[in-house]
Amino acid sequence: MRVAQVINVRPENFEKYAALHADPWPEVNSMIKECNISNYSIYHYNGTLFAYFEYSGDDYEADMAKMAADPKTQEWWSLCKPCQEPVADAAEGEWWKDIRELYHLD
Amino acid sequence: MRVAQVINVRPENFEKYAALHADPWPEVNSMIKECNISNYSIYHYNGTLFAYFEYSGDDYEADMAKMAADPKTQEWWSLCKPCQEPVADAAEGEWWKDIRELYHLD
Repeated sequence: MRVAQVINVRPENFEKYAALHADPWPEVNSMIKECNISNYSIYHYNGTLFAYFEYSGDDYEADMAKMAADPKTQEWWSLCKPCQEPVADAAEGEWWKDIRELYHLD
Repeated sequence: MRVAQVINVRPENFEKYAALHADPWPEVNSMIKECNISNYSIYHYNGTLFAYFEYSGDDYEADMAKMAADPKTQEWWSLCKPCQEPVADAAEGEWWKDIRELYHLD
């Protein structure tokens, strides 16, 4: 399963966000992989972050809940989240917004 | 090598672009693969197209030139290009604009 998502980055915190992601915490990366996510990239253009990743587990919601319950991940998010702001049309409570795939070629 | 790119989609032609990419021409897909591109996805959010692909060849410019010289690809592009418009800060002559990777986890 492929997932692509968007979120805005606060301009005043962009450099902080970029620095965090240039040197991510090994424990956070390990937890992501443990939650069956791989080939995960985050790109930036014009105030918007685009994420792309692949999910290979069989219970995405359970894996996301597991990640959200991890203390080190929570600590990481406490640094990242002030740098981000959900896009205007994100659903209530939604952080990263899933976006629509128009095309795929393996 | 991973590549992510953005371009705008003209709102009046979005549905046409989406329909083309829901049913891509086999010859165009074959040429993309022959040019060493794989795992190629195009996403849409809020008037912007976001492309992600992986390149496994050793001469990206030569492969892109090969693709551009393919008559069937040119015919496909003649349908796609009127649906698209380069982003405001694209370089002179640039169509899709490469964007910056902030993070990657294999």
